Amino acid sequence: MKLYDYLPSGNGYKVRLLLAHLGLKHERIEVDSNAGGTQTPEFLKMNANGKIPTIVLDDGTVLPESNAILYYFAENTAFLPEKRIDRAQALRWMFFEQYSHEPYIAVVRNWLHHPELLTPERKARLPDLKQRGEKALKVMDEHLATEPYFAAGRYTIADIALFAYTHVADEGEFDLKKYPAIQAWIGRVKAQPGHIPITQG
Amino acid sequence: MKLYDYLPSGNGYKVRLLLAHLGLKHERIEVDSNAGGTQTPEFLKMNANGKIPTIVLDDGTVLPESNAILYYFAENTAFLPEKRIDRAQALRWMFFEQYSHEPYIAVVRNWLHHPELLTPERKARLPDLKQRGEKALKVMDEHLATEPYFAAGRYTIADIALFAYTHVADEGEFDLKKYPAIQAWIGRVKAQPGHIPITQG
Repeated sequence: MKLYDYLPSGNGYKVRLLLAHLGLKHERIEVDSNAGGTQTPEFLKMNANGKIPTIVLDDGTVLPESNAILYYFAENTAFLPEKRIDRAQALRWMFFEQYSHEPYIAVVRNWLHHPELLTPERKARLPDLKQRGEKALKVMDEHLATEPYFAAGRYTIADIALFAYTHVADEGEFDLKKYPAIQAWIGRVKAQPGHIPITQG
Repeated sequence: MKLYDYLPSGNGYKVRLLLAHLGLKHERIEVDSNAGGTQTPEFLKMNANGKIPTIVLDDGTVLPESNAILYYFAENTAFLPEKRIDRAQALRWMFFEQYSHEPYIAVVRNWLHHPELLTPERKARLPDLKQRGEKALKVMDEHLATEPYFAAGRYTIADIALFAYTHVADEGEFDLKKYPAIQAWIGRVKAQPGHIPITQG
């Protein structure tokens, strides 16, 4: 199968990390989404929404959306909880990640890494985005103060989804020292068998 | 069980609509999120992320995030596909909804309905949000030009998630006449047995 990916992307890293845990071989195709690589006619024909990661299965089936890809590969493995309510709680944190976390923590990191993206209009929005990102980290830290992981009491795709951008939040000038429970959880995630860093393709 | 909800919310409506299809009784508690109802100490104690809809099951379990709630109630019913790849595709469209659709189509509708929310800074962002909302509608319209529904060839929670804000997109000044496949799909969704309108609590 093929994984259309962009190495600095936390959304791409989620999929790389789960595939590494599961030992699933794939061809990785690098697409620079900041340079318009996901907006070409060829890419849009495959995924009209123009985003990586996108998986193409061996039978040609196209599956975009990082968290849907995580769900697909996690089914019937230890990375998706067995109990119905735990599966729903894992998804609850994955929707939280895409709505209340990624649009602030990932977006600020991307803008700060690519000064050409930081237009005056975006620069003016930075304080608001930073504040919303801090709120997401606070919600995570409160949960992790009493729970080792996000769902089912163990490491699941909810942790993979939230780890991807949280562990590099400092690259968006978020100070993780303020969140001790998150720091401890990052240590637990990194200690999982088969863990790979975001820099590994 | 209890559903913390806000009648004008499409996210709340998703849950109301699925519970109506399934005939599941619940106590609905109205919380005006535009007036700070989700930011009180009591509400934040239940859901630290401060958002409706939030479900409290009879055993006291709290489950926020509209699309995670849809997933929970749809499991083992006709509203969640049986095949693994179809389940993943349903979730793919639900993540698309929360990341690429709701932040534009729902947010513009809410701001235009509540002039007090439309600060000068937000007003300046309207053209960008409108453009991103149009893109989401175009992606949906292209899919629906060749498929009757979003996943598994039939009405599922992916349709419920996308229907909620799409069918009232005109309230955010999005012109659905430009999207004939979406209009036909809206007709198919409204014809489903047990359908209720967004105005019904």
